[in-house]
Amino acid sequence: MDLVWICVIAGILGAVVVAYFAWYVLRQDEGSEKIREVSEAVKEGGLAFIHREYRTLLVVVVVIGVILGLLGFITPALGWKAALAFIFGAICSMGAGYAGMNMALRSNGRTCVAAEKGLNEGLRVSFRGGAVMGMAVVSIGVLGLAVLYFAWHNDPNFLSIIPAYGTGASLVALFARVGGGIFTKGADAGSDLVGKVEAGIPEDDPRNAAVIADFVGDNVGDVCGMGSDLLESYVETVIATMTLCAVAIALEIVSDIKAAWHIPMLIMAGGIVASIIGCFLVRVGEKVEMSALLGALRRGTLSASLLTAIFAFLVIYFLAQGLHLFWAVLGGLVAGVLMGESTNYFTSYAYRPTLEISEASTAGGGATIIRGFANGMMSTWPPIVLIGIAITVAFHFASFYGVALAAVGMLSTLGVTLATDAYGPVADNSGGITTMVGLPSKVRERTDALDSLGNTTAATGKGFAIGAAAINSLGLILAYAVATRIVTPEMITTGAFPSALSLLSGPVVVGAILGALMPPVFCAMTMKSVGVTTVRIIDEVRRQWREIEGLMEGRARPEYDRCVDISTREALKQMMAPSILTIIIPVLVGVILGKYALAGFLIGALITGFVFAITLNNAGGSWDNAKKWIEAGNFGGKGSGAHKAGVVGDTAGDPMKDTAGPSLNIMLKLMSVISLLLAPVLVHFGGLI
Amino acid sequence: MDLVWICVIAGILGAVVVAYFAWYVLRQDEGSEKIREVSEAVKEGGLAFIHREYRTLLVVVVVIGVILGLLGFITPALGWKAALAFIFGAICSMGAGYAGMNMALRSNGRTCVAAEKGLNEGLRVSFRGGAVMGMAVVSIGVLGLAVLYFAWHNDPNFLSIIPAYGTGASLVALFARVGGGIFTKGADAGSDLVGKVEAGIPEDDPRNAAVIADFVGDNVGDVCGMGSDLLESYVETVIATMTLCAVAIALEIVSDIKAAWHIPMLIMAGGIVASIIGCFLVRVGEKVEMSALLGALRRGTLSASLLTAIFAFLVIYFLAQGLHLFWAVLGGLVAGVLMGESTNYFTSYAYRPTLEISEASTAGGGATIIRGFANGMMSTWPPIVLIGIAITVAFHFASFYGVALAAVGMLSTLGVTLATDAYGPVADNSGGITTMVGLPSKVRERTDALDSLGNTTAATGKGFAIGAAAINSLGLILAYAVATRIVTPEMITTGAFPSALSLLSGPVVVGAILGALMPPVFCAMTMKSVGVTTVRIIDEVRRQWREIEGLMEGRARPEYDRCVDISTREALKQMMAPSILTIIIPVLVGVILGKYALAGFLIGALITGFVFAITLNNAGGSWDNAKKWIEAGNFGGKGSGAHKAGVVGDTAGDPMKDTAGPSLNIMLKLMSVISLLLAPVLVHFGGLI
Repeated sequence: MDLVWICVIAGILGAVVVAYFAWYVLRQDEGSEKIREVSEAVKEGGLAFIHREYRTLLVVVVVIGVILGLLGFITPALGWKAALAFIFGAICSMGAGYAGMNMALRSNGRTCVAAEKGLNEGLRVSFRGGAVMGMAVVSIGVLGLAVLYFAWHNDPNFLSIIPAYGTGASLVALFARVGGGIFTKGADAGSDLVGKVEAGIPEDDPRNAAVIADFVGDNVGDVCGMGSDLLESYVETVIATMTLCAVAIALEIVSDIKAAWHIPMLIMAGGIVASIIGCFLVRVGEKVEMSALLGALRRGTLSASLLTAIFAFLVIYFLAQGLHLFWAVLGGLVAGVLMGESTNYFTSYAYRPTLEISEASTAGGGATIIRGFANGMMSTWPPIVLIGIAITVAFHFASFYGVALAAVGMLSTLGVTLATDAYGPVADNSGGITTMVGLPSKVRERTDALDSLGNTTAATGKGFAIGAAAINSLGLILAYAVATRIVTPEMITTGAFPSALSLLSGPVVVGAILGALMPPVFCAMTMKSVGVTTVRIIDEVRRQWREIEGLMEGRARPEYDRCVDISTREALKQMMAPSILTIIIPVLVGVILGKYALAGFLIGALITGFVFAITLNNAGGSWDNAKKWIEAGNFGGKGSGAHKAGVVGDTAGDPMKDTAGPSLNIMLKLMSVISLLLAPVLVHFGGLI
Repeated sequence: MDLVWICVIAGILGAVVVAYFAWYVLRQDEGSEKIREVSEAVKEGGLAFIHREYRTLLVVVVVIGVILGLLGFITPALGWKAALAFIFGAICSMGAGYAGMNMALRSNGRTCVAAEKGLNEGLRVSFRGGAVMGMAVVSIGVLGLAVLYFAWHNDPNFLSIIPAYGTGASLVALFARVGGGIFTKGADAGSDLVGKVEAGIPEDDPRNAAVIADFVGDNVGDVCGMGSDLLESYVETVIATMTLCAVAIALEIVSDIKAAWHIPMLIMAGGIVASIIGCFLVRVGEKVEMSALLGALRRGTLSASLLTAIFAFLVIYFLAQGLHLFWAVLGGLVAGVLMGESTNYFTSYAYRPTLEISEASTAGGGATIIRGFANGMMSTWPPIVLIGIAITVAFHFASFYGVALAAVGMLSTLGVTLATDAYGPVADNSGGITTMVGLPSKVRERTDALDSLGNTTAATGKGFAIGAAAINSLGLILAYAVATRIVTPEMITTGAFPSALSLLSGPVVVGAILGALMPPVFCAMTMKSVGVTTVRIIDEVRRQWREIEGLMEGRARPEYDRCVDISTREALKQMMAPSILTIIIPVLVGVILGKYALAGFLIGALITGFVFAITLNNAGGSWDNAKKWIEAGNFGGKGSGAHKAGVVGDTAGDPMKDTAGPSLNIMLKLMSVISLLLAPVLVHFGGLI
């Protein structure tokens, strides 16, 4: 029996758990009519956005699919199979995003009701609502790969076809992250600025027409965007490893291609089972403390990591020669866990860096920005050193194949990691709904507690996502080098790399410098887009206050859907330029400057992108929590000068941490996987100049 | 006759011009007793800082000198000659910094008096005060190199000795930039926050004890820091080119070593003469407009560029085979001019990017930060593309030697470029003094106009300094590769680079990722230092208001020197950690991970450092000018909400553009030149792991 059937079984098991969690959430009480009404509006908005986004996507997917099909006339390595794989990858990603978001949208109102009963009930509903996304991503990821495997693994061009699957997933992720990021922060900032700052009404006040758009944004950005981001990392790590199988054979680490293909897939399968167990371990007693809640989530993720490590050991013990590969997997797994913790240290107000930002806020907004940005830059060191160590270990034990497998190790426990992460926006939404419909303050207290826990897990999750994107991107670049025959497996065994790939050759240096340019320009574009969307939202809310009679007195309802509509339209419009840039530029570099320059370009982009992603993410996260710490009554509390400065930091950080930073993950991966996909074409280009 | 005598003549000519400008400034009227009093206090503070800094430096210089001398026991390439060259480089840099700053300190009060007569008189005094720095740097730079040349150019280890000269200059520059940057922004922010924001008294009010420290800061940071930064770039480009002479011979571009050494030195000599002519072309009629002032400065720099290009053409025509080298020089020269212009576009309120930041300020401080930071990131593209093109051209025509020579081209007109730049802080200071001593408002209007022009030239100058640092650093890295014999001239001619230097080999990738970490961590440390100094200053000013009776009523004088003293002490204390990091880490990487990893490390640092330096510099510059645009009466003018938001941006941007950003220049160059200097030692290290 082919060992990939084990993956199919694990994938189906994951799907069963998804169904169970969904059933569990759906049978919960939907609550009063008012809750249902708000929750329905959020659901409608979220689905409207997704539908419109997917319609736009469909056009792009079909166009690129046709191009891939036509490329079959140039090289037999591409063609209709690659086109199909690409479309299949896009559909898988859309499906995972849709399922996860749909469920999150149905969990928020129910979490409010559950929180009325108690904190623990609230946790269970919101966690399981989020876990649907986590488990759906890994199930669909593994099952999709298995389908491709069974369909075409005997095809001589199999290794050229599978990157198309990853590219499809990547494209959807790009749209979801960039579009979702612009939507969520445009709506959030617009709602805050016009409501809290300008009109002086509380957050989530029902008279603010942008409130529903803000809730919708949490779902399209943090749930759907994060899910498709990590689905992409998940499948692409496996793809990179499979593409590098010849390296493993040349190094005599595995005896045949099948083993080299099975190892990553089986580790993923083991990770799914471990994640399921981890999800069920997230359980607390009836009387709970915050630290106990966090402990429960940690127990879930750490047990899953341990189980996966054991499983990986067994897989490698039986399928590979020696334990070289195990150390690579372990390096990735440990680096992933520690990277999440480091993010938590730099962004949580339980630790000094964020407290120092709160303190600096007493000297005004400028000081808040300086201290927070310095903190973001300083926070780059643990992730980079960790990734550096993981790569060194992986290179040492299994060269290129080892690096790709380290990424597999890092992502193997994604099911549970993503579950703890997607839970955050559900809790956040339910808190908002609680205020909007005017539930008792003790309910808001509970949802606030859940939200606060969600912020910690979101920070950990984001650190993990960045690390995963970086190491996965490196794996794809190595796969690109092998696929373009810049580096052959023989070169790796003998250590004789080609001169043209030298770090100090002209095209490589110039490529690296140009690549370094991509992340800041991309971030600049997405951050500016948020600004534009924010202004549109503010104008619309002001218009409604002006034109709808009795709105401010609570006698009339604002037209929430107009703000959702504006955010949707702006997000889709604004994401086009950065998205097209991400797709076109690497192709142009490859064609004009040649395949060696493209390798330099990808490495240059990876290096700066990694640094920028961590800086923006952690600066934003620490500003957010520094403000929360002030709001908790420190340094003058709400309404003080320090609070005003804290709000400046929070507002500035939002698009950094929720739009620009996370979108960089996708940019790095998409540029790498497109280069890998086009390798059969690029192999002919030595550079036009 | 040895052609280097031409350099000596040019250097002496430059020194004569320095003497003339100094004489011109010193014979100007020093003004009323009140002006003299303030100006004297600033001078005392500035000199006190410089003396203390140089004392600390002396210890470090002697320690490193002894180490270099002792390394002579390990390799004959180093030893007492290297130690002497190192100390000589440090002394040259200190001398240039001292001369320039001393003159700037004597020009500020005189500019006030001259501005009483007219705008044009004010411009002449301040420009000539600044030009002393510009011409002193190039004269000392060229004469220092000539001294080394005549002393030791027949020594077989000459090429190992000259990097020590650059390292000496680099070390002083690091202290001056980092220490000066912390001093100037700590004092500036402290003075603003406690005075303008907290007590509500005007800027430069004499009751504010930190005002003098603020004036001193402009001189130690923008004059002394900038001067030593560019002196370093200036001499190191020549050093990199000389070190790569064997490449030029192997490529058959020049016929012998002497020609390869003479070409860069002669181009510099030609640049000095061109700069002198350029300086005298900075002249305007009696009735002047702002645009005419700017035009006058442009005429100076552009004519100097044109003359230098002609001179370089002649030098290359007579000394080299073919015109290959000319294209490399021209590429660098043009890239340098355009890079300055691009900085101006992104930071001046004459253009859209900065105006958009002013507009965004109406939505609050958060929006100001987002838009300004996005602008900073977007502004990376012209400099990076320009450098990319210059490097491509240089590589194409003369490989490694060409890149180093492109840097020579860029820096050849430094004399006049730096003069226009150093003029800025003189004008800024004179404006402050005008307010402090209460001169008529029409004088302040004139000094404000001079200051505003100074801001434009400062922006251009900073863009130029960053570009020069980047291309110079690349030249030094290439020289390092040749000096460690990672790459031999034969490899360059045959194109057969070693495998271990491959972009995708383990140590190189890991080195590049670790290198990428240096700039953000370094910036984080320096920015945090500014914050710490600011707090100390605020505490001291508050203490004086509390304890000195009648101070607020103007009956008593504050103790200005206490604030100067605090800034000095803090700056010297805080700069130690980042400085030591910059010196130690590359050495550790070279010894532990090996010389190939160190090459990757330097390239990784260069790439991220370049991107960060431009982003921080231009974000800061555009925030500054966006605030000025609001203060000019737009979007509500002074005191409006937009103005408050603009102040947040300006405060946040100050340490980015004046401390962290410029210090990165030195960090990149110092790490590269230290690696080059230690090449004879590192050649033995293959990496411990």
